[in-house]
Order: sequence, then C-alpha cells, then structure tokens
Amino acid sequence: MMSCLDDGRFHGELGNGLSSDGYASIEDAVKVLLQGLGEDTNREGIRKTPFRVAKALREGTRGYKQKVKDIVQDALFPEAGLDNKVGHAGGAGGLVIVRDLDHFSYCESCLLPFQVKCHVGYVPSGQRVLGLSKFSRVAGIFARRLQEPQHLADEICSALHQEIQPAGVAVVLQCTHVHFPDIELQILDPNHQGWLETIVSSGSGVFEDKQADDWADFLGLLRLRGTVMEKLKFRRSSDPYWCPSLSIKVSSAIEPANPGMVAAAAKIIKSLGEDPLRKELRETPRRFVEWFRNFQNKPDMKVSGFLCGRRDALSMNGEVDLNSKRVYAELGIPFWAQCEHHLLPFHGVVHIGYFILDGFKPIGRSHLQSIIHFYGFKLQVQERLTRQIAEAISPLLGGDVIVVAEASHTCMISRGIEKFGSNTSTIAVLGCFATEVTARASFLKTIPSPASPAGQ
Amino acid sequence: MMSCLDDGRFHGELGNGLSSDGYASIEDAVKVLLQGLGEDTNREGIRKTPFRVAKALREGTRGYKQKVKDIVQDALFPEAGLDNKVGHAGGAGGLVIVRDLDHFSYCESCLLPFQVKCHVGYVPSGQRVLGLSKFSRVAGIFARRLQEPQHLADEICSALHQEIQPAGVAVVLQCTHVHFPDIELQILDPNHQGWLETIVSSGSGVFEDKQADDWADFLGLLRLRGTVMEKLKFRRSSDPYWCPSLSIKVSSAIEPANPGMVAAAAKIIKSLGEDPLRKELRETPRRFVEWFRNFQNKPDMKVSGFLCGRRDALSMNGEVDLNSKRVYAELGIPFWAQCEHHLLPFHGVVHIGYFILDGFKPIGRSHLQSIIHFYGFKLQVQERLTRQIAEAISPLLGGDVIVVAEASHTCMISRGIEKFGSNTSTIAVLGCFATEVTARASFLKTIPSPASPAGQ
Repeated sequence: MMSCLDDGRFHGELGNGLSSDGYASIEDAVKVLLQGLGEDTNREGIRKTPFRVAKALREGTRGYKQKVKDIVQDALFPEAGLDNKVGHAGGAGGLVIVRDLDHFSYCESCLLPFQVKCHVGYVPSGQRVLGLSKFSRVAGIFARRLQEPQHLADEICSALHQEIQPAGVAVVLQCTHVHFPDIELQILDPNHQGWLETIVSSGSGVFEDKQADDWADFLGLLRLRGTVMEKLKFRRSSDPYWCPSLSIKVSSAIEPANPGMVAAAAKIIKSLGEDPLRKELRETPRRFVEWFRNFQNKPDMKVSGFLCGRRDALSMNGEVDLNSKRVYAELGIPFWAQCEHHLLPFHGVVHIGYFILDGFKPIGRSHLQSIIHFYGFKLQVQERLTRQIAEAISPLLGGDVIVVAEASHTCMISRGIEKFGSNTSTIAVLGCFATEVTARASFLKTIPSPASPAGQ
Repeated sequence: MMSCLDDGRFHGELGNGLSSDGYASIEDAVKVLLQGLGEDTNREGIRKTPFRVAKALREGTRGYKQKVKDIVQDALFPEAGLDNKVGHAGGAGGLVIVRDLDHFSYCESCLLPFQVKCHVGYVPSGQRVLGLSKFSRVAGIFARRLQEPQHLADEICSALHQEIQPAGVAVVLQCTHVHFPDIELQILDPNHQGWLETIVSSGSGVFEDKQADDWADFLGLLRLRGTVMEKLKFRRSSDPYWCPSLSIKVSSAIEPANPGMVAAAAKIIKSLGEDPLRKELRETPRRFVEWFRNFQNKPDMKVSGFLCGRRDALSMNGEVDLNSKRVYAELGIPFWAQCEHHLLPFHGVVHIGYFILDGFKPIGRSHLQSIIHFYGFKLQVQERLTRQIAEAISPLLGGDVIVVAEASHTCMISRGIEKFGSNTSTIAVLGCFATEVTARASFLKTIPSPASPAGQ
C-alpha cells in the first residue's frame, strides 16, 4: 500500500498546473453546469466564474502532483536521544506532537471542500527528527486531493511512517463538512450552524494499537490545547456516511438529474487527473449535480402578493412617532447560498430588526425564513442577498428595516488565501435604520456575541 | 501619498523571487551572523539554514513586488444598491465587513515577524463591490514588507480606497509582536505569554472621523465575532514604542555589538529591496543583532556542580517504593529559544514533573528557570531543548523526571505554511516516567487545559 503513495492517483498531464488545456476543459464543463442552472454565462458576475473555478480546483487538488519524498528529504536532522535504559527523549523515543494544523480537502463523494484540523504525533527513533513544518506540508499533499477522512488520515500516517522510519506515527483529524440544506431541519433548529464534524485517527508502529500507552500520551497532550478527545466521538466503521450527500435519497424518480450536467461534473473529475470510474467517485457527479441544482435560477418573488395583509395593517398607521415604536429583533435565521464567483457555498445566519407598535404581533419567523431561502437558493453574492431580503421584507414591515447577514464563505478557505477563521458581515438598512445610528446600535446590541459569555 | 503605493519601496531587482543572486547575498550575510554566535556553519542542523532564511525572507517580503491594481482590477463587480432616499444596501451604502484575516508581517524596527489579525470594512458606492477575498490579498501585499502597525493600516486603507473608490474604508489591525526575553520579568510573572499586542486603526472617506456613525456600525459588527473593542486599547500617538527593541537601552557601552554582524544585517535589508538608510531602518541592524546575540553559543553547563546538594539529598534515599512517592509538578515555566533551522524565535512554557518524598522540599522554581534559560538561549530545536532540560535536572531530582515543552514557533506562521493556530509539544521522560504510563498521565492531568474552564 505504501509503495504507491508517492505517485498518488494522478493520471493527467498537468505540467506546471497552469496548462491552458486543463483549464479549458474544466471551464467548458463549468459553463455547462451554469447553463444547467438557467444562467446566462455572459452575465458580468459569472463571466469569469468558469476560469475561477478551474483555477481553484487545480490549486485545490495539486497534491496529486506532489511527492512526500521531495518534502521530507532535506528536513531529516540528526538528533541525539537517550539510552533506552534511562528514558526516552529527543531523537530516540521523545514524543513530538504538532497540533491544530488547518487544511482543507475536497470531498470525494460530493466535490465540495471540507475543513481539516490535523494533529500529528510521532515517536522518533534512530536519532533523527523531522523539521516541524513538514508535518503540515505532508498533510497538505494528501489533503489537496479528492478525499474521505479516514483515507486521508491513513495516507498521512503511512507516508510519514515510510519517510521518517520512526517508532510510530499518530494522526487525528477533525473534519468539518458543510451540511446540505434541509429547510425543515433548519427551521426546527435555528442554532443549526451548518457544519458536520467527524473525527478519525490513524496509527502506525507503537500507535497501531489504539489501547497503547503512546495513544494515552498523545491524547493527553492534545488536551493541553483544548482538544478534549473524551468529549469527541471518533467515527466508527459502523457509521458509513460522513458526507451528507450519501444519505440523500436519489430523487431521480421525481426529477431526473440533468445528464449533461452530470457528464460535465464527470469531465471535471477526469480533468483533475482522477478516474471517474473509481468506485468511490462513480456516483459523485450525480451527487454534485443534485446539490448544485438547489441553486437553480428562478424569477424574482412576487413580494407584493406575499403577506400583503401585514403591509396593509402597518401602512394604515402612516408616519408614527419613532419614540412610541420598539425594535423587534428576529435573530439567527439560517441561510444558504452559492457564491456566484466560485460556485462554492456560503452560509450563516440573518438577523432582522424592525419596529412594532403595541398591539401588533411580530411577523412569523417561518415567513421570514421562506423569504430568506427564496433569495439564498440561487447563485448569489452576500451583498445582493442582504439587499434583496431587506427589499422584500420592507413593505411587509412598515419600511423601517435592518438586515444583517453573517456568513462563512467556503471560497475563503478552499483557495489560495486559506483564511480559515475569516467571516463576513453585510448590512442593509431602510427607513429610520438608515438615518438613526442609535437605532442600528440598539439592534446590533441585541445580537449575542460568541466571546461575551453571560456575565461579561 | 497614494500615488506611490503601488510601487512600494522596492529598489532591488528580484526577478521571479528565486534569483540566485539575491539569495546568495542573504545567505552570505546569514553565515556571518551564525559565525558571530560562535556557530560552526557546517554543522548538520544549520548547514542549510542560510538558504532557508534567505528563502523565508524573500517570500515574507514579496509584497514589495506586488501591485494592488493587479489584485483588484478583475474583482470589481457591478452590484445594485438602493435609492439613497429609501436606505443603504448592496453596491450603494451597504456596509461590508471582512473579519479575522490572519497575516504576518516583518517588524521594521527589529526584523522579527509579527502576527496581524486584520479586519476590513467598506461602504460601497457607485454600484460596485469588490470580491471578498481581495481584502485579504490587498492586506497581504502590504503586510509582506518591513512594517510598523499604523503604517500598515494606513497603507491597506489608502490602497483599498484608491482602487475601489467607495464611500469609505475602515481598517482595524490587532498586531502581536513576540516579546523580548527579559529574565527578571518572566520569573516575576510565570503566566507571561511572550506576546505584546497593539491595536491600530485607519479610516478614509466616511470613516475619516473616528466619531462617525459608520465606525459605530463597524465596531458593532466586530463584536459579533467576539472582538470587543471597548475592552481593547487602541494605540495612541503618545505610545511611541510597540516593538520591544525600541525600549531596550543601548548596551553598546558595556558590550559593543559586533560590527560585522550589524553590517550583515544591513546587507540583508538591502537585499530585500529596502533602503537601510531609511529613517525607521537605520538602527534596525543593530537592534536585530542585540536580539540575536541572546542566543550566543556557549559550552555545556556543568550540571554536576550545580545544585548538587539536592542530588545528594535524594540519592541518599536510594531505591524507594514508588507508591510512597508523590508527583510534584512545576508548571508553566516560560522559555525562549531560537530555531536553528530558520533563525526565528520559538517560545512557550515548560512543565516539569518529579517525585518528592515526604519531608523534602521541592526544588526552587527559580533554579529550574535558570536551567531552562541556559538551554533556551542558544540556537535550538525543541526536541533537543526538552532532552537537555530533562538530562540536566534528572540528577538533581532523583532520576524520575518528566519534561513537557509547549511552544509556538514563529517559523510556523511566517513562511509558506502560515499555520497560525499551530503549536508543538515535546516530552522527555526518565526513570519511572519512561516506564509507567499512569505516572505520565497523572502528571499531564495536572496541567490546566485552556478549553476546560472550571466546572467542566
């Protein structure tokens, strides 16, 4: 198994990764996908999207072209240890752990990126140690491919063991996959964060036995950085699905997936150098297209005929004294959208503020959720989504409206910039929220802050 | 001021950044610096250090060669806004914030890297918005130079304003600089984390006035990610020093800095394309050498003559029943070291465990601190440091010793891998700590974990 690791599973000819041939075939496929959503591929916002997607996919899977040996060979350093009778330290038995290495990978089941927090440990032997940065570089080689968490952990572990020849290597990966939109579930659970986590591990040598003392040391050291493994559930082999696409029932009986789009997705997989007929990849194009078609282009909502009773009730009141109004806040309504620049999901929550008068019931949360989903489930940018939600709800809510969208963008982690902790916020303000900073401030203060626990 | 931004302050000829000429002159200078510490530049661990340092410095200052226009020009998208009478949203007045962008920069006062958490906001105008990832890319252009926090914030702000032409741009930077070793201070304050934080801000257009409503909105949105500005102190112009090298008194009267080393440091600055005679850089080579010479090579400690009374006392007891011993833990002793592979600091804490018998006083913390500093203040790797500490204290403590080092490596954030949250742990175990997993586990449990607050 180890002998083929260096070669990966790459079959294509990528040259320097900038080969226009390879780009062109992905770009063509992306155009087919965009047309399948009913989009005009000459529209300004998406005109260069096929190129951006091709570039991001190529960079994001460049691990196929990289060799572990190239990374490791210049970074093995002689390092004294202790006589085994005295103890274990340094280059002979001294456990080394590198924790919290952030990476991303591509899910081989659905083609979406997933985040990987990687912890690696090893017990050196033979009086030599590996430069610390190389654990991250080697993990990156295998992460930047189409992957599945357990397979990724096994590959990192085997490759490090082969190159370092230590007493043993241990790998723990905390993988987070974007959830798939499920409107019912999200309405039931407003705190739904949109992430699925799975934890996998792999061990070689002294770490081969999960009950070995070395694992106790390794997990004891992970705890020092706050990774408390007792609280986390490792995936068992009886949990077959980690990617949500695998648990979605094939809806082909109702609405068959567009065969042209499925063929285009298969063409992309092939262009990355993978074999679309490999067992794990055979259904991936269909699953990707099922996900992707959530974002079908659709004509604008007829807001005037939607919940109009509410608007009439409020507009009857005409201009009211601001001081007699109070801010009503509907917080943390989940949303989903697909970034039209990179064809990657962004998701988060929308907070809505408006004024209500005594005696009037606030608008139902599920109605707001429906409007948000209507504008979310299409190719979007966060600025536009925020404006569209504000414009749609404003006539229903008397014209004084603030909308704040808080989002994680998959495109901010899974391309060159790799800004793992970053997050984006957008605001749209109408009526007195546009003119009164105190109205905005009093609304923003109602939104809970993650780092301001109760009592602070 | 804005007109010269795109050109930066780069004067050299770097070509593709891999020019062997540029590398060679930095490599030669690094050799002089290593020799100045009394190191043998042919020693295996540091033989390739000059090349690694040259490569890291070149990559870390590649911002001199990058142009903001190249980043921004393809990423300005038409985006509808609202009629100004109705409100503000999208491409006309809809505030956008991108938070928590992790970067690093190089301190122009001392040449050490510092971390930057960058928050950028802008108010679009003219119905156009900038692709979200570009805020990070533009910040990166200016971060990857020799910098000072306020200047960095101003450059990011001005460049974004010039290219986007929005209603205004706001930038907040949380910069953390490695502290300089100060043995007295650290012994007094065992929880000293080794970082200095400063917060700076810059605003253009509607953000020019710090009292403007737009700043209230911006800070209100930062709070949603836990960045509570009221708790943080912005740097005032009356706080002149943020880099600790600027507050160190010139010790040249006592021990003049090696002129050859200072000239070598100046040569490095010049090779990066900077002007060593620029006002802010004139004293930088001397300051760098002052820092660097903390890590002078020195002969091994004569441990046998050090604290030997303690060893005698324990050795008199001979082999004692393990069950009658109890683990004594000395936690969180700060350490400093210089990574010999990259000539960058790594620092953190050492936890020491040993057994004491009833009636014996534990060894003094300041004695342990002295030993740790002796081995820390030289060119090191963490594995060796841990072993050397364990070997040095073992004879003083009866032979049953566990040493855990927890460290942040500046080289893990300030080169290509940029793994901002990563952290490394190493263990050395002697005597029964090498053989008994329960002894190790009971010691590790005494170390507090950051994410296990009291009560969990």
